[in-house]
Amino acid sequence: MTYDLYYWPAIQGRGEYVRLVLEAAGVSYRDVARLDVSQGGGVEAMFAHMRGDEGPQRPLAPPFLVDGDVLIAQTAVIVSYLGERHDLAPLEERDRLFARTIAATTADFVAEAHDTHHPVGVALYYEDQRDEALRRAEGFRNERVAKYLSWYEALLGGNPSGPEHLVGDRLSYADLGLFQTVAGLGYAFPRRMKSLMPAFPMVARLCEQVAMVERVAAYLASDRRIAFNEDGIFRHYRELDDE
Amino acid sequence: MTYDLYYWPAIQGRGEYVRLVLEAAGVSYRDVARLDVSQGGGVEAMFAHMRGDEGPQRPLAPPFLVDGDVLIAQTAVIVSYLGERHDLAPLEERDRLFARTIAATTADFVAEAHDTHHPVGVALYYEDQRDEALRRAEGFRNERVAKYLSWYEALLGGNPSGPEHLVGDRLSYADLGLFQTVAGLGYAFPRRMKSLMPAFPMVARLCEQVAMVERVAAYLASDRRIAFNEDGIFRHYRELDDE
Repeated sequence: MTYDLYYWPAIQGRGEYVRLVLEAAGVSYRDVARLDVSQGGGVEAMFAHMRGDEGPQRPLAPPFLVDGDVLIAQTAVIVSYLGERHDLAPLEERDRLFARTIAATTADFVAEAHDTHHPVGVALYYEDQRDEALRRAEGFRNERVAKYLSWYEALLGGNPSGPEHLVGDRLSYADLGLFQTVAGLGYAFPRRMKSLMPAFPMVARLCEQVAMVERVAAYLASDRRIAFNEDGIFRHYRELDDE
Repeated sequence: MTYDLYYWPAIQGRGEYVRLVLEAAGVSYRDVARLDVSQGGGVEAMFAHMRGDEGPQRPLAPPFLVDGDVLIAQTAVIVSYLGERHDLAPLEERDRLFARTIAATTADFVAEAHDTHHPVGVALYYEDQRDEALRRAEGFRNERVAKYLSWYEALLGGNPSGPEHLVGDRLSYADLGLFQTVAGLGYAFPRRMKSLMPAFPMVARLCEQVAMVERVAAYLASDRRIAFNEDGIFRHYRELDDE
């Protein structure tokens, strides 16, 4: 069985949250839009699904995952689906549900990170909304990042199984999502994150541990891991960052 | 068994998506923050959970639902949890997963509607970000609303069980979410919605049908249904609307 992931081929973006779960699970998958057209790949194959050419259950936007006759979209929905099927989710039902809560909250955090460079709209270039971005990034940097990180830190500190994981006693897709978000913020807002992170030692420790998970480490060192860049969700614009 | 819903007591907001599922399911629930303090209610009871006073699995923000020892937050996660337990979800697994996709996409749509009046940040008043709001609302009104509505219309048109439901052959939480979103947009952007809706007849028909579901109709006519207002997610500011 091979999963088909559809996402923009040249960025980490939201698709990276799915890639990390697939890689950490060690399952077979095709990153379809990055494949050659001769292999059924390319962005046209992605657009075909979005237009409904492949069936009535179409996604509004990537990332989306095709698993046989199942199509699901939305990062938080996809990672919970995969995590629960491949031993990257807590075992107990209440913890499984709370992991879904965490993933959906992380998706909100990511959307807020995105909107620092696109506060007016996705149809416009960053350069056409820079003034608004300066205002939005200030609030994100000075209030929102710490609000979210404090929440993750509290979850780690309160986890009855110990501060190694956000929920439950094993690596889950919730942990992978926090790792990716902190990595992205470190790229986009290096000055701010450098001054903030000492206040969140358990978050920092979790991120270090995730990066050392064998399959994750192998993935990060591979050419499957696209570098952060200014077409993605986490973008480094010097003027939006500050200590 | 009684569910405890926690949400801001004076607005529909995101909590309304949960209220609608609870009402349509006909299950017993307490809208805790709207209860008197003597009954264990009030916003302080909500803040206690958010501070972690009630256990380590705390939500970042309302709405959240407590069901025995389960706590879940995030609108899309809560409505799928309730819908799947109370016959307001499709029966087949692939359809159940697609309903989750729809609910998460609707949550994005709602976040975009919110950001029309708060494009810079939630910590500021609307009046302090009105210039940015004028720009953001224009793009939302002219591009985003039609993009989302076209997607729902395509799902209805493509549903093998017929255009009465977004997915599957019965009323689901996905349908309830679309109803609430169109109602909110009709309140916030009456001119724009009046000119747009004729292009989406299946969406319009679904919303009419949902409003006539017996339990939904009873709820909408009750004093449990809070009126839309300018503290909620969907706000009517004349200057943000246009045909």
